[in-house]
Amino acid sequence: MSKPVVGIIMGSQSDLRVMKEAAEFLDEMGVGYELTIVSAHRTPLRMVEYATNARKRGIKAIVAGAGGAAHLPGMVASLTSLPVIGVPVKSSNSIDGWDSVLSILQMPSGVPVATVALDGARNAGILAAQIIGSSDKEVGKKLDKFKQSLQRKVESAAKNIESKGWQSAL
Amino acid sequence: MSKPVVGIIMGSQSDLRVMKEAAEFLDEMGVGYELTIVSAHRTPLRMVEYATNARKRGIKAIVAGAGGAAHLPGMVASLTSLPVIGVPVKSSNSIDGWDSVLSILQMPSGVPVATVALDGARNAGILAAQIIGSSDKEVGKKLDKFKQSLQRKVESAAKNIESKGWQSAL
Amino acid sequence: MSKPVVGIIMGSQSDLRVMKEAAEFLDEMGVGYELTIVSAHRTPLRMVEYATNARKRGIKAIVAGAGGAAHLPGMVASLTSLPVIGVPVKSSNSIDGWDSVLSILQMPSGVPVATVALDGARNAGILAAQIIGSSDKEVGKKLDKFKQSLQRKVESAAKNIESKGWQSAL
Amino acid sequence: MSKPVVGIIMGSQSDLRVMKEAAEFLDEMGVGYELTIVSAHRTPLRMVEYATNARKRGIKAIVAGAGGAAHLPGMVASLTSLPVIGVPVKSSNSIDGWDSVLSILQMPSGVPVATVALDGARNAGILAAQIIGSSDKEVGKKLDKFKQSLQRKVESAAKNIESKGWQSAL
Amino acid sequence: MSKPVVGIIMGSQSDLRVMKEAAEFLDEMGVGYELTIVSAHRTPLRMVEYATNARKRGIKAIVAGAGGAAHLPGMVASLTSLPVIGVPVKSSNSIDGWDSVLSILQMPSGVPVATVALDGARNAGILAAQIIGSSDKEVGKKLDKFKQSLQRKVESAAKNIESKGWQSAL
Amino acid sequence: MSKPVVGIIMGSQSDLRVMKEAAEFLDEMGVGYELTIVSAHRTPLRMVEYATNARKRGIKAIVAGAGGAAHLPGMVASLTSLPVIGVPVKSSNSIDGWDSVLSILQMPSGVPVATVALDGARNAGILAAQIIGSSDKEVGKKLDKFKQSLQRKVESAAKNIESKGWQSAL
Amino acid sequence: MSKPVVGIIMGSQSDLRVMKEAAEFLDEMGVGYELTIVSAHRTPLRMVEYATNARKRGIKAIVAGAGGAAHLPGMVASLTSLPVIGVPVKSSNSIDGWDSVLSILQMPSGVPVATVALDGARNAGILAAQIIGSSDKEVGKKLDKFKQSLQRKVESAAKNIESKGWQSAL
Amino acid sequence: MSKPVVGIIMGSQSDLRVMKEAAEFLDEMGVGYELTIVSAHRTPLRMVEYATNARKRGIKAIVAGAGGAAHLPGMVASLTSLPVIGVPVKSSNSIDGWDSVLSILQMPSGVPVATVALDGARNAGILAAQIIGSSDKEVGKKLDKFKQSLQRKVESAAKNIESKGWQSAL
Repeated sequence: MSKPVVGIIMGSQSDLRVMKEAAEFLDEMGVGYELTIVSAHRTPLRMVEYATNARKRGIKAIVAGAGGAAHLPGMVASLTSLPVIGVPVKSSNSIDGWDSVLSILQMPSGVPVATVALDGARNAGILAAQIIGSSDKEVGKKLDKFKQSLQRKVESAAKNIESKGWQSAL
Repeated sequence: MSKPVVGIIMGSQSDLRVMKEAAEFLDEMGVGYELTIVSAHRTPLRMVEYATNARKRGIKAIVAGAGGAAHLPGMVASLTSLPVIGVPVKSSNSIDGWDSVLSILQMPSGVPVATVALDGARNAGILAAQIIGSSDKEVGKKLDKFKQSLQRKVESAAKNIESKGWQSAL
Repeated sequence: MSKPVVGIIMGSQSDLRVMKEAAEFLDEMGVGYELTIVSAHRTPLRMVEYATNARKRGIKAIVAGAGGAAHLPGMVASLTSLPVIGVPVKSSNSIDGWDSVLSILQMPSGVPVATVALDGARNAGILAAQIIGSSDKEVGKKLDKFKQSLQRKVESAAKNIESKGWQSAL
Repeated sequence: MSKPVVGIIMGSQSDLRVMKEAAEFLDEMGVGYELTIVSAHRTPLRMVEYATNARKRGIKAIVAGAGGAAHLPGMVASLTSLPVIGVPVKSSNSIDGWDSVLSILQMPSGVPVATVALDGARNAGILAAQIIGSSDKEVGKKLDKFKQSLQRKVESAAKNIESKGWQSAL
Repeated sequence: MSKPVVGIIMGSQSDLRVMKEAAEFLDEMGVGYELTIVSAHRTPLRMVEYATNARKRGIKAIVAGAGGAAHLPGMVASLTSLPVIGVPVKSSNSIDGWDSVLSILQMPSGVPVATVALDGARNAGILAAQIIGSSDKEVGKKLDKFKQSLQRKVESAAKNIESKGWQSAL
Repeated sequence: MSKPVVGIIMGSQSDLRVMKEAAEFLDEMGVGYELTIVSAHRTPLRMVEYATNARKRGIKAIVAGAGGAAHLPGMVASLTSLPVIGVPVKSSNSIDGWDSVLSILQMPSGVPVATVALDGARNAGILAAQIIGSSDKEVGKKLDKFKQSLQRKVESAAKNIESKGWQSAL
Repeated sequence: MSKPVVGIIMGSQSDLRVMKEAAEFLDEMGVGYELTIVSAHRTPLRMVEYATNARKRGIKAIVAGAGGAAHLPGMVASLTSLPVIGVPVKSSNSIDGWDSVLSILQMPSGVPVATVALDGARNAGILAAQIIGSSDKEVGKKLDKFKQSLQRKVESAAKNIESKGWQSAL
Repeated sequence: MSKPVVGIIMGSQSDLRVMKEAAEFLDEMGVGYELTIVSAHRTPLRMVEYATNARKRGIKAIVAGAGGAAHLPGMVASLTSLPVIGVPVKSSNSIDGWDSVLSILQMPSGVPVATVALDGARNAGILAAQIIGSSDKEVGKKLDKFKQSLQRKVESAAKNIESKGWQSAL
């Protein structure tokens, strides 16, 4: 695997079922990453250390996921000037996901978190790759190919329905 | 003023118009407190220092207020085993206060924040006094008197309306 | 079991599946408690008696849980000057828990309820122990150990993922 | 004024600006009422006394208004078998009225509150009159006339617009 | 069965699983009722006929349940001066019940609907019985007994937990 | 004015400040319309008559606006097979408009209402013109011109900002 | 099948389980339609082509369904002056459907989308038929028959309950 | 001004009062940008052209703001593989901002938008600078200085309150 340039962290191992999609996308793009667990609420000093040292380790973007009163993405953003991408995770005790969405999205002026959709870890991985791709041409090309593959899948499904009738696609 | 046993902190000086009500109540009860500004997002290391040293300074309860994606109360709770009381503040960029309410209330298992109503700083001050009063009889007595004064005000307003008619009370 | 210093009450026996977590935490901390059912809506006079006598029986904090239009925590808080911790319970007829959260959280000025997350009974137990711990050093030490155990669990899971790869942790 | 058969109560004098509309409607219908302030949270024992004695005093329906975590209507309903009509009041600290609506509406099985719209005190007065009117023919007739007057006002406005053009009605 | 004095209607047969609880309660109280299906949206003229003739048939209160954009309770209230009790039903296409709650609760001034909790048909039956009971002493006594039975059930569950320990009640 | 083919109705004269935008757009397109007040809750029989006769009078689409528990659009849709366009109006007693939006949008299967944005009366007028335009070529052409005018306004503003700098456009 | 006059499109093949109900209704009415997949986000240029050419192909109304941040209906409406009917689909990652409802409903002035209820594809099909029916008498008659069949089903269920008792209908 | 590397676009000139904060921040950081108006709904083809050509013009990140059913950020993201930052704008017809937040945030898998807080244009500018700064050391240094200035402001306000008392800061 190539040298990690993206850091993927999450508040709890139970978030991994969602957050692995960010890792899987970066694997597809050949972008190196590190992945670990950092809890804002249970390991606050570990979080301080992780965030303040990330840039020195060569990390260029951080993907952070958490559920409920989700403080990890925002706190990491307060501790580094790297771009931080936040993934609201719909955990079991969440009020339909609203708590994690608002805890991550509504950051005060001066400390942004780039928030993606509820459980949108794959999109967080794509954003991280886009940031890397803004100065890495090879990644940029892979992203373009990925975009084309999305398009082809839709066109192929459409063609199928148009030729065989929608009843065949149920 | 007596030795501070309650710490009152807030994320921004603009929260003071709300948070001063906690201080005013503690003044009424004769409970010593300290009040300052600690921003989770702009001064994270100051927050770590404040929270980890509070108990050593003799603080017995912390009242923390913040708006929007309000991380201060929960992060302080992650850094101390003192009881932390959270005040959701309806700041100018808030989505009707829902963001601060959910960011403070929905803490994960293991790290509670005692949350009060939106802009409920006076109630946060009362809760802090109740915690002090659980082992300080004098504060306990003052709280009982305060409760009686609430009752008397309602009874007096009721008596007025009953004797003079509700039209007189508009 | 030691003398009860925390009262745990709930509006219905069906809330016990949630509320037992408060009792279990107090058992872990060696804090004595009493637990019973008190319904604001079906046994209002029993509630008045319970709340007005709690302090005399040596209770120092009350944990009250209820669902839907949850009036128990707030009404108990109106009847005693002890600190009251409210647990919104997501009952079967609740509108996604919003009713119990808002019925407990949004108390008027003068009568606070220390509200925890939806179904957050374990955190209510921790808050109760923190209040006891503010004047009982032994409980305070146990709380510090508990906090360290939370941290160790995260660190151990992180170490595992870092050494064996995240795929091993799914 | 005729003998009171409807009790109108509210949690705070500040609710009078809304709740007076219930009184005004009962005045229009010639239905006797009493109006006073009873706070669930500041005068809980006064509330118990009020609710348990209402029937004995000849009251046949109770209109109760409150804001925020509005417990008055539900608690009164728990203390009497009279029909209780609840008015959610949008008070200054309310979260857009959702707290008072849900605190009054979502009563558990066995203890209903007949809830009206946010700040809908006039409709609460109408409901109270309808309950009285179900066994009092004179009130029933006045309610029918009131309904016709609503209809006539709309028809008159419609006629005006149809004959003079909508521009004239702005 | 005694002569119907309560009309129970619902927008669709699929609402019967909820609405039958109103009928069952009236059976318990010995209050006569009629129950049928009247759809505001599929049989609007049947609804007009039902509502305008209800009083003549001796009906004293109407219980109306509907889901989604629930117009039945409000439209019936517009067509009669009898008290109308509305039951928001959480139907399969509802947005978590918010649509039926708001469509029934937020009636304009002049045309009230006595709204109960989401799926709260039993409470609607109780309210109907309370309205009948305001002029029928026998029904009034049965309602008092019902209230006592609610209380006894809670007290018995509480006694059980207090004597045998809460672990026995899980 | 040309023969009315669109009916514009609203529940109350106070809705006219919003609903007049539908009329103004139809005036711009040269589409004939009639406009009056029809209240579902205060003039239900007038509403039945209006809706059942609309088609006979030559009306081809109905625009209906109402606030709060907005039943007018849905009830009219239940009484005619003409397309009905619903405008949720944010009235003074509305809960931020959610009540009117959901009361109009969430119609049951079989009885659609074409709902537009909160206070979106102009868009309702456009939809009505589009329905007329589907079989009236002249109206279709005017709609195309209208669409081009929208585009030109944006392009002109953009050109201005690009040439003079955004500071000039504040 | 007759010549297509309605276009049914959806953002993803997974929306077909909902959107097929629009097709089925048009089949019942004998209205010709075309159905395919057009993704605003994955095939934006295909969407531009589809929408700008629809009128030329003889399409008179477009039914567009999408979930989450649902941009398809609004974007199609921006590219054609045909009436566009939007169906919010409750997809797996949706926040209870609110995202798709608001993304489709809250279109800016000038570009309406006729929005139906969440997952309300059948109603979208009915609206499309109503638009066709405004100038096609045969379709208009079929719509009237459909409306009568809705009424008869309710009347038959009502009759059954009234004659056999509601217990028989559970 | 340096060569534009960030594109700032908005759906309407009325959004400029919010969106100018992104431009102002990039000015502070010395990052070149272009700013114009591009409406997804009124100029869809202009939007297609803007988005598909942005990368060729040297743009490395796009900041897009819009209100209501905000489709601009998501549609631009569908047309380019550049990172797109979305700013939900609380426009006059918005339902408290929820519509723009959800329309931008809840993008489907494959097409991310980096969403910031409601009206959070300044944070969007910071994110854009962070993306530029990930490969431009000079911008990186300026961002670090900016972060320190945020910290100093809080520390200075805190020092003031601590030395002069909070009463002096009201």
